[in-house]
Amino acid sequence: MTNIRVGLIGFGTIGTGVARNLLEQSALLQQRLGKSIQLLRICDRDISHDRGLDLRGVELTDNIDHVIKADDIDLVIELIGGYEPARSFVQTAIEHGKHVVTANKALIAKHGDELFVVAEKHGVSLAFEAAVGGGIACLKALREGLAGNEIQAVFGILNGTCNYILTRMENEGLDFDVVLKDAQDLGYAEADPSFDVDGVDTAHKLAILSAMAFGTKIAFDAVHTEGIRQISAQDIQSATELGYRIKLLGITRPHGDQVEMRVHPTLVPLDSQIAQVSDSYNAVLVDGDYVEKTIFIGRGAGEKPTASAVISDVMDIARAMPDGIKHLAPPMGFPQANRRPFNVLPIVDVECAYYLRLMVKDQPGVMASITNVLADHRISLEAITQKERHETEAVAVVMLVHETREGNLQAAIDRIMQFESVEDQPLILRIERFGE
Amino acid sequence: MTNIRVGLIGFGTIGTGVARNLLEQSALLQQRLGKSIQLLRICDRDISHDRGLDLRGVELTDNIDHVIKADDIDLVIELIGGYEPARSFVQTAIEHGKHVVTANKALIAKHGDELFVVAEKHGVSLAFEAAVGGGIACLKALREGLAGNEIQAVFGILNGTCNYILTRMENEGLDFDVVLKDAQDLGYAEADPSFDVDGVDTAHKLAILSAMAFGTKIAFDAVHTEGIRQISAQDIQSATELGYRIKLLGITRPHGDQVEMRVHPTLVPLDSQIAQVSDSYNAVLVDGDYVEKTIFIGRGAGEKPTASAVISDVMDIARAMPDGIKHLAPPMGFPQANRRPFNVLPIVDVECAYYLRLMVKDQPGVMASITNVLADHRISLEAITQKERHETEAVAVVMLVHETREGNLQAAIDRIMQFESVEDQPLILRIERFGE
Repeated sequence: MTNIRVGLIGFGTIGTGVARNLLEQSALLQQRLGKSIQLLRICDRDISHDRGLDLRGVELTDNIDHVIKADDIDLVIELIGGYEPARSFVQTAIEHGKHVVTANKALIAKHGDELFVVAEKHGVSLAFEAAVGGGIACLKALREGLAGNEIQAVFGILNGTCNYILTRMENEGLDFDVVLKDAQDLGYAEADPSFDVDGVDTAHKLAILSAMAFGTKIAFDAVHTEGIRQISAQDIQSATELGYRIKLLGITRPHGDQVEMRVHPTLVPLDSQIAQVSDSYNAVLVDGDYVEKTIFIGRGAGEKPTASAVISDVMDIARAMPDGIKHLAPPMGFPQANRRPFNVLPIVDVECAYYLRLMVKDQPGVMASITNVLADHRISLEAITQKERHETEAVAVVMLVHETREGNLQAAIDRIMQFESVEDQPLILRIERFGE
Repeated sequence: MTNIRVGLIGFGTIGTGVARNLLEQSALLQQRLGKSIQLLRICDRDISHDRGLDLRGVELTDNIDHVIKADDIDLVIELIGGYEPARSFVQTAIEHGKHVVTANKALIAKHGDELFVVAEKHGVSLAFEAAVGGGIACLKALREGLAGNEIQAVFGILNGTCNYILTRMENEGLDFDVVLKDAQDLGYAEADPSFDVDGVDTAHKLAILSAMAFGTKIAFDAVHTEGIRQISAQDIQSATELGYRIKLLGITRPHGDQVEMRVHPTLVPLDSQIAQVSDSYNAVLVDGDYVEKTIFIGRGAGEKPTASAVISDVMDIARAMPDGIKHLAPPMGFPQANRRPFNVLPIVDVECAYYLRLMVKDQPGVMASITNVLADHRISLEAITQKERHETEAVAVVMLVHETREGNLQAAIDRIMQFESVEDQPLILRIERFGE
């Protein structure tokens, strides 16, 4: 029986969850593995404060080299997050022959491809199940469980903070700023929430899912990314009346040699499974040519769900050590040599149905002018509603339009925005019906 | 690059799907694997009729030994189903050093444990992802993706035929017999539907899930199994009015050394994710101590979804061949030596909330008598409704009762059934709220 000797870097919330699992669940892990996993050393800048764990047998250090360069460590768990110094720590650990497990989506989305090459060269694994969908185990499902499929599309609710905010906005009829403030007070949102609410975190995860689904390189910079700040309680209400719910979705589909990758608030049908995923839950919908639609739902963040995913990677590697490592599925599901370059489908070439909200002065003929422009661009209206009448102030006009090329819609909107009676920035939301 | 040489036995619907994938998707499989999978030979009793596939390079045979004993076959895919001769074919293939992939839940539920021992002895894999949940990849998720969790419970909608029937009964207000007949005419239900509608198929799958979740031996015979024949359109209607939907669920939970395993029609809250799983879709909900609730939803049957799961097993084995096989996760998630004997929690010791439907003659005092008996047994009522009044004929009285031991409820019902004014067999359905 081989012991697997583990070093952990980053002893925050997730690190505490992982250490808790390795220490308190060790008998179960050993029963499953037939070998034991030993948490040997934990590195953090702050090793003084109490995490409420019985750490006998575990060495605490603030010297990173005692983990990533140590001779007695087989596997390093990186939980410090962010691009740097995580990237250089992970690379150093790999170069010292250590397997690495990380929950760091930013790192994988931005530097994953260069790190996979280094890991392959050194004959070690770099695993990252916790980077997408927290505890759901959706990466393993996509990479291995659905490996017989040509993937047609992947959709995801990938950020628990945004989903929590949108759920509360809908349930309580509150505006974005109010719910965000409350979420921050409750610790559900960061003091600087922009990674979450501006869609960056979702884009990191979508870039990983997309490359894994289609066998391309990871192209985070190619993700068209919009956040949820511009959504009002009124938009959520209007969407509901039209039979839709607003979710921040990551969407990726192949189009020949090109791939569509976009993150934005999306109208989804109220009766779709994705629409039922509320609060901080995440969901990943994979549409494969053989399996059809498969949906994975669970906690996308938090100490214990994230730890669950980290431990599953550790178990896979531990099971394969020492001589089975090269038979694990490659990190992105395709051998490095078989992964294609990424070619983005420009957002103007995406075809979608849309929800449009314009602020319009209620003057005779304005609706006719708008609908004439849409007709000029061969954009057909599915619904148009004006919520109220007001003599002097602008009122909201909400339209649903059938599928059209986004560039075409933008050209029409540009013309409409030149009308004197149309005010403000328009809100343009895409609709996704999951091929139904 | 090693070729993996595959032999297929059973060339029906699923076999056609698997052959189609191996033949038509071979470039993609090779891109993912870095090696090629070659479908060398197919065995079926009927090799004459056309399955609409281009079978150049594939040898058809009706001689089983040409697959399961052939020197040039590395991996056998068993898709003939049922206990025998599938069991002996699989055993022979294993004894001849072949890896085996099967979609046969009956075989694994009944003979899996003996076959795993033989496979271990011969150093080959016996894989069966397609046996539970069709294409969903839920076994891989439970066995590997959630391996860091002590599992608290597994719930499943595991039979697409039953879920289809219950969905149509609800949507169209039809009775069981009518929908079954129609499903048979449409080919969605077998001519002999008892494996499906009496819960046997679900019990096969639940026994596998339970053993994988809790590290026990597979104990199909210990599953308490009830089907859906006794459900009426009226029951579905009553359940809806009370805020529930009726699903055929498999449920398993550990209780110390004992495990609860039961399959029966179950009332689930209308707003639960499980309640949204309609038509022939399957769902598996795993509740782990770290991950919390995780739900996997997808097609549980059919040519292509089942083929998807079979291929994922083939890919795992192909990736590990020849020398990494022993590093694959053990088939049931625990090494054979670490799997405990199964001890059933008797159904009388299960604690549940219940839905009761009694046919009662509308006589003065009868409701009082019934509620007095329940009170005697310390069973508390959550709701009681009598749908209509009728002078002479019995009418349905529907009750919801709070959690109680099933043995206790049975004792109360036995007393109630002795009342002259209470007719017929009572309908007793269990309620599951998934720990909410």
